[in-house]
Amino acid sequence: MHQLLVPRITPTNPYPLSSLFIRKTSRVWKAYVEHDFVKLLGKGTIPKENFVHFIRQDYLYLRYYARAYALLAAKSSSFSAIGLATQTILNVLNEINTHTAFCATFGVSEETLLTQTAESPATAAYGAYLIDVGLRGDTTMLLVTLLSCLLGYGEVGLWFKKNVQPTIATPGSDDRWVILEGNPYLQWIEDYSGERYQGAVRMGLGSLPSVLLIQILSPAITATIKARAAADPPSKHRLEEWCAVWERCTELEKGFWDMAMNLS
Amino acid sequence: MHQLLVPRITPTNPYPLSSLFIRKTSRVWKAYVEHDFVKLLGKGTIPKENFVHFIRQDYLYLRYYARAYALLAAKSSSFSAIGLATQTILNVLNEINTHTAFCATFGVSEETLLTQTAESPATAAYGAYLIDVGLRGDTTMLLVTLLSCLLGYGEVGLWFKKNVQPTIATPGSDDRWVILEGNPYLQWIEDYSGERYQGAVRMGLGSLPSVLLIQILSPAITATIKARAAADPPSKHRLEEWCAVWERCTELEKGFWDMAMNLS
Amino acid sequence: MHQLLVPRITPTNPYPLSSLFIRKTSRVWKAYVEHDFVKLLGKGTIPKENFVHFIRQDYLYLRYYARAYALLAAKSSSFSAIGLATQTILNVLNEINTHTAFCATFGVSEETLLTQTAESPATAAYGAYLIDVGLRGDTTMLLVTLLSCLLGYGEVGLWFKKNVQPTIATPGSDDRWVILEGNPYLQWIEDYSGERYQGAVRMGLGSLPSVLLIQILSPAITATIKARAAADPPSKHRLEEWCAVWERCTELEKGFWDMAMNLS
Amino acid sequence: MHQLLVPRITPTNPYPLSSLFIRKTSRVWKAYVEHDFVKLLGKGTIPKENFVHFIRQDYLYLRYYARAYALLAAKSSSFSAIGLATQTILNVLNEINTHTAFCATFGVSEETLLTQTAESPATAAYGAYLIDVGLRGDTTMLLVTLLSCLLGYGEVGLWFKKNVQPTIATPGSDDRWVILEGNPYLQWIEDYSGERYQGAVRMGLGSLPSVLLIQILSPAITATIKARAAADPPSKHRLEEWCAVWERCTELEKGFWDMAMNLS
Repeated sequence: MHQLLVPRITPTNPYPLSSLFIRKTSRVWKAYVEHDFVKLLGKGTIPKENFVHFIRQDYLYLRYYARAYALLAAKSSSFSAIGLATQTILNVLNEINTHTAFCATFGVSEETLLTQTAESPATAAYGAYLIDVGLRGDTTMLLVTLLSCLLGYGEVGLWFKKNVQPTIATPGSDDRWVILEGNPYLQWIEDYSGERYQGAVRMGLGSLPSVLLIQILSPAITATIKARAAADPPSKHRLEEWCAVWERCTELEKGFWDMAMNLS
Repeated sequence: MHQLLVPRITPTNPYPLSSLFIRKTSRVWKAYVEHDFVKLLGKGTIPKENFVHFIRQDYLYLRYYARAYALLAAKSSSFSAIGLATQTILNVLNEINTHTAFCATFGVSEETLLTQTAESPATAAYGAYLIDVGLRGDTTMLLVTLLSCLLGYGEVGLWFKKNVQPTIATPGSDDRWVILEGNPYLQWIEDYSGERYQGAVRMGLGSLPSVLLIQILSPAITATIKARAAADPPSKHRLEEWCAVWERCTELEKGFWDMAMNLS
Repeated sequence: MHQLLVPRITPTNPYPLSSLFIRKTSRVWKAYVEHDFVKLLGKGTIPKENFVHFIRQDYLYLRYYARAYALLAAKSSSFSAIGLATQTILNVLNEINTHTAFCATFGVSEETLLTQTAESPATAAYGAYLIDVGLRGDTTMLLVTLLSCLLGYGEVGLWFKKNVQPTIATPGSDDRWVILEGNPYLQWIEDYSGERYQGAVRMGLGSLPSVLLIQILSPAITATIKARAAADPPSKHRLEEWCAVWERCTELEKGFWDMAMNLS
Repeated sequence: MHQLLVPRITPTNPYPLSSLFIRKTSRVWKAYVEHDFVKLLGKGTIPKENFVHFIRQDYLYLRYYARAYALLAAKSSSFSAIGLATQTILNVLNEINTHTAFCATFGVSEETLLTQTAESPATAAYGAYLIDVGLRGDTTMLLVTLLSCLLGYGEVGLWFKKNVQPTIATPGSDDRWVILEGNPYLQWIEDYSGERYQGAVRMGLGSLPSVLLIQILSPAITATIKARAAADPPSKHRLEEWCAVWERCTELEKGFWDMAMNLS
C-alpha cells in the first residue's frame, strides 16, 4: 500500500515538505546556511578580494540560472506556467543589472565580468547541474532544484534581517552579528533581504504546483498562502528523488561559498 | 488522503495499468487496433500504392523513434538504463534494414526512402510528438509514450497470429481473416508477429521501472514476469497525465493508418 | 576553396539572404503567401467555421511557438540574447490575450480554447517541428525556423495593408481586394498589419546575429538597418541546411492554411 | 570576403584543424598532457589513494560521457549518424565493465562505485559541461567537445606507448619513463594504449563530418584517411567557437587530473 510520507499540514508544522527536506539534509544544510562567508559578510569583514571573486562567479552562475528558467518555460504545458517562468527570467535579468552596478563600485567593470572572468569548477558544477536536471527531469523536479537555490538566498536575506545589530544596544541584542553601518557590502545585504528579492522568491514559488507550494514555503517567507487539498502527493520514490536533488543543491551552494573563501 | 487508482494485480486482472489505459481510451483504441488498414493488410488486399505510402512514411517515423530512445538514454541515471535504451536503438536500426530490404521488393530503393519521400503531416505529428514529450517529461513519461507505440505493433502482430486462416478449414476457423498464402505483405506480417520483434517488445518493456512493467504488460506478450511489490505507484494526477499521453499516441497511431488509407 | 553563396548587399538587392530563401523555395512560397485562406480573409468572405477552426488551432500553435523561444533563451550564451528571446515570449503571451478576446467575439470561450480543442495533425506537425529543430540545431538554425514564421505573418499583414480597397475608387485601386468595411475579421487584419505586431517582428529579427539580420530583412519590414560587414558568413553546406529548414516551414505554414480550409 | 582560416592540408601539415586547436591552446594543452598525474602513473609511483580517487570519479564522468553520445544520437539526422553514436555508447559501456573489474582489483566494489562515491566539483563541472554543450549547440559543436576528450586519452595512451622503457637499455632509451614491469596500473596503461581503445577513438572520429575528420586526426592515430575536398569549411566565427570549446575541455581535463592529485 502506498505510504504518504509528507506529514499533513498542521498548525505546528505548516510547511511539512520544506521542513522534511531540511531535516533530511540537516548536516549539509547547516554547513550551508551558517557558512563563514555569510557570517563575515554580515559583519562586513570579509576581505574585498573574496567578495569580488564571489560576485564575479555569481554573475556567471546567474546566466545558468536564467537559462534553467527558460528551460522550465520550454517544458511547460500552459501559457500561465510559461508566463510565470518568463517573469522569473526578467527578475534575474534585473538582478544582473544590480550586480553590474554593484560590481562597478568595487572597480569591476561589466567588460571584466563578461570577458575576463574564468569560470571556477564550483560555478560550473552548480550551474551546469541546473541545466542537466532541466534536461533529464520533469518540470516539478526542475522546480525543486531552482527553488532550493531561490529559497537559500531568501533565507540568508531573512537571517541577515533578523540579526541586524541595533545602533543602540537593547536587551537581547547582544547576539546580533550583522552590522549595517559602514558595512561595505551593505547593498548586497539589503538587496537579498529587501522586498524586491523576497517578492521574486514568492513569484518563483508561485510556479510550483499548489500542493508543493504550500508545503515548501517557510512561514518566514510568507504566511499568506492558504492551505488547499493536495492534488498530486509524491510517492515515496519521487519524494526521495526530490530530497536527493535538494541535498545536491545544498552541497553545491556550500561549495560555492567554499570557493569564495579559498579563491579556488 | 492519497487514493491509489491503479487496481491491485490479481489473478483475473494481472496487468491493471495497461488494462486501465485501454479501458479509459476504448473508443480510440478500438478505432486504432481494428483499423481498415490492418484488416486489408491481413487479407492481402490493401492496394500496393497504400502499402508503399505507409512503409515509406514508417521509415521516416522510425528515425524519430530511434532518436526518442536516444533521448531516453541521454536522460537516464544509470548505466543499465542507458544500456537498455541503447539496445532498443540497435533493434530499430535492425528493423530499418528489414524495411529497406522489403521496400526493395516493392521497387522502392533506399535512395528513394532517404531523399525522395516528403514527410506527411501525420508522420511529422507523431514523430515530433515523441521528441516533444522526450524534451518535456521525465523518463517514465517518455517510456509510456514509447511503449504505447511498441505495444501497439506488438498487439497487431499477435492479432494477426491469432487470426491466421488455416489452409484447411476447421471448426471455429471461419472468422479468421488473415490469409498468409499469396499475401504480398507476408513478410511484414511475419516480422511483427515473429519472435524477433516480440522479443524487442519485451526488451523495450524491460526498461520500464518494474512496478510499471508488471502492470503494463498484456498476458499475450509475456506471462513470465513475477509480481513484485509496487515501489513507485503514481498519484492520481500523474496517472491522468500518463493516460492522456497514451490516448494521444493512440490517436496518432490511428492517424498514421488513416494517412496510409487516404494517401495524405 | 570556399565559395560564398549569399550575394553581396547592393542597392538593388539589399536583403540577399531572404531573397535567396524565397527564390529557392518559390513554388511553395507562392502557394503559401497567396493562399485562398488569406484571400478570403481579406475579402471578409471566409466562412466563420473555417476562421474559428483556424484561430483555435493557432492558439495551440502559439504555445509551441512561445516554448520554442524559451528553448532559444535556454540555449543562449549571453544575457542580452536571453533578454531578447524572453521579450518575444512576452509578445506571444500578449498575442494570446488578443486571440482570447477575439475568439470571445466569435462565441469561443477561453475554456473551449484550453480544454476542448483537439490538435489537428497540421498543428502538431508544425508546432512540434519547432521544438524538434530547437532540440537538434544551434541557435542560428532555430532562429531561421522561428523567423520564417514571424516573417510570414508579417508579410501577410503588409500585403493586406497594401491591398486595402479605398472607400472611394481611385485610379489603380481596382485590383485591391482587401475590404475593411464590414469585414468580420477586421481585427485580425489590423492586428497583423498594425504597428504592435510589426514591431514584434523587428524585435524578433533583432535577436538574429547582425550579419543574418541585414540579409534576411525585407525592405518592406524595415529599411532602417545599416549594412555592416559580414562576420559569420555561412558555408555552402550550412546555407543549404537553412534553406531546407526555411522551405519546410513554408510547407508547414501552407499546410496550416490548408487545414483551415478543409477543416482537417 | 570570407577568410578561410584553417590552413590547407599539405604533406607537412596533414591535420591542420587539430594542429590549429592545439597551437591556439598550447599553454593549457601542455599543462594537460604533461600532467604530473600522467607521469606518475606511467612510472607506477602514483599513490594508490590518488589513483583510486581518480578512477572512481572517472566512473561517474563516463556516465555523463555516455549520455552525451546519446544526446548526439538524439540530435542526429540520419540512421547512419545515429548508428555511429550508438556504437560509441556501447564502447563506453564496455569501458565501464573494464573499470569495474579493474576497481575490484583495488578493493573498490561496484556497489561502492555506484552508491558511495560523492561527485567531485571537477567531475561535475566537466561532465555537465558535455550535457550543456549538447543542449546548446549543433551536432558538430557537440562532436568537437566529445572528440577533445576522446582524443586526449588517445594521445596519452600513445604517449605511454612511445615512452615505454625497454627491459634492456638501448641507445636513446634513457628518456623513456614508462615502466611496465611491476607497474600496478599496467592494465590502465594497456587499456588506453591498446588496440580496442584506439579503435574506439577512430570510431568516434568516424562520426565527424569528413571535412573535420581529415583535419582533426593526428597522424599518430591514423594515417589511413584520404584527403577529400572540404564541403563545409567553418567561418572565422564558428572556428573561434570550436576553439573556445576545445580550450574549455582541455582546462576541464587538466582540472580532472588536478583533482586526482589533491584529492579534492
